[in-house]
Amino acid sequence: MRRAISVIGGTGPAGTGLALRWARAGETVIIGSRDAARAQQTAETIRQRAGANAQVSGLENSAACAASDLLVLTVPFEGQAALLKQLKPAMRAGSVLIDATVPLAASVGGRASRTLGVWQGSAAQQAAELVPKGVSVAAAFQNASAEQLNGDADLDCDVIVCSDDPGATQVTMELAAKIAGVRAIDGGKLENARIVEQITALLIGLNLRHKGHSGIRITGLPDGAYKVSLLHNR
Amino acid sequence: MRRAISVIGGTGPAGTGLALRWARAGETVIIGSRDAARAQQTAETIRQRAGANAQVSGLENSAACAASDLLVLTVPFEGQAALLKQLKPAMRAGSVLIDATVPLAASVGGRASRTLGVWQGSAAQQAAELVPKGVSVAAAFQNASAEQLNGDADLDCDVIVCSDDPGATQVTMELAAKIAGVRAIDGGKLENARIVEQITALLIGLNLRHKGHSGIRITGLPDGAYKVSLLHNR
Repeated sequence: MRRAISVIGGTGPAGTGLALRWARAGETVIIGSRDAARAQQTAETIRQRAGANAQVSGLENSAACAASDLLVLTVPFEGQAALLKQLKPAMRAGSVLIDATVPLAASVGGRASRTLGVWQGSAAQQAAELVPKGVSVAAAFQNASAEQLNGDADLDCDVIVCSDDPGATQVTMELAAKIAGVRAIDGGKLENARIVEQITALLIGLNLRHKGHSGIRITGLPDGAYKVSLLHNR
Repeated sequence: MRRAISVIGGTGPAGTGLALRWARAGETVIIGSRDAARAQQTAETIRQRAGANAQVSGLENSAACAASDLLVLTVPFEGQAALLKQLKPAMRAGSVLIDATVPLAASVGGRASRTLGVWQGSAAQQAAELVPKGVSVAAAFQNASAEQLNGDADLDCDVIVCSDDPGATQVTMELAAKIAGVRAIDGGKLENARIVEQITALLIGLNLRHKGHSGIRITGLPDGAYKVSLLHNR
């Protein structure tokens, strides 16, 4: 991949962890934040961890959005809709928005091991309703542990990618497979994000109960299911 | 375990597979079916596959229910509520009902990769509403592939057990751990079955898309999370 990846809300634990992994894989990453100074600070921290050649910079969210057509959204559910409305003018047709949002009940003061019902079916489907025409949404990375992403060990989990646009699925699977230890799986249509988002709440419950940083692996599929065909060379 | 396990709806693929695995592990299994003759036929098939010492018999569902206080329900969602109402007089206080039902949309002519909304939150919670007082419900085995269960190879999946009764969780985890290759995980309260049931629909979608018999493994938990403490010796 040659184009930059803009991680919107990239100063939170999930966004920082993903950015760190991509920076280590040699990708150019832009951290987006409400506060440009904070974005630059996080970018500097990631550069220090990822090595001298790491390509990481920090920008205010809208600027980060305008700077790339490959966007990764890692914000708490309570901020998702408002942020997408704000970013709408900065998104270009042809862009891919990868949404990692999970509608945890914690967003409204409930438990992180429970989810809210989202009218559209999932946070990712809500995102799809809020992006401009011509922007494709893929749902992914909801189940990857932020703690594991921010560590140094290879991850031990699969990333299920859901999208109605095969091109967006492809790009997202490529990005997932760049994280050491992760296998990317095509999870079908965007509507299936309903289930993948729920799994995060289950994993949070398991983490609380068993004191871990859990993830999931899918077993029983042929090897081909995990293969990312590198059709795109951007 | 010394008490018999009654698999209600045990002539279907999931029930037969579970019964086969438990028979191989030396458990006494009763196959329940609407039709006693069909139950006996399935029991005979399982005996032939599980070996000469296998303890498997077949009874009509109500008789199978009355014959044990450890019940495993493996029926399609569309038959669950009516069957539980029918079985109610045959269930004894102190029994454990392990529910493996998944509210697939296929129950009403929809897709097996989608689920129905259940008023109580999950099929397992619906079951809990329909059993007599004093019967504990645990949700488990929804994600175990029937094809894999009916095979000879060790399974490669985890079974997440959800129940509001720690004793029922314990018994169910013991039963799960008796299946070669399965790790049992305490998934917390029965309400979490909402998520575990959904996962089955996701796995069915993956099976259709990638031609496999998928399951899930939970990663990132300490070893203790998978340990079944054998408190009970029934």
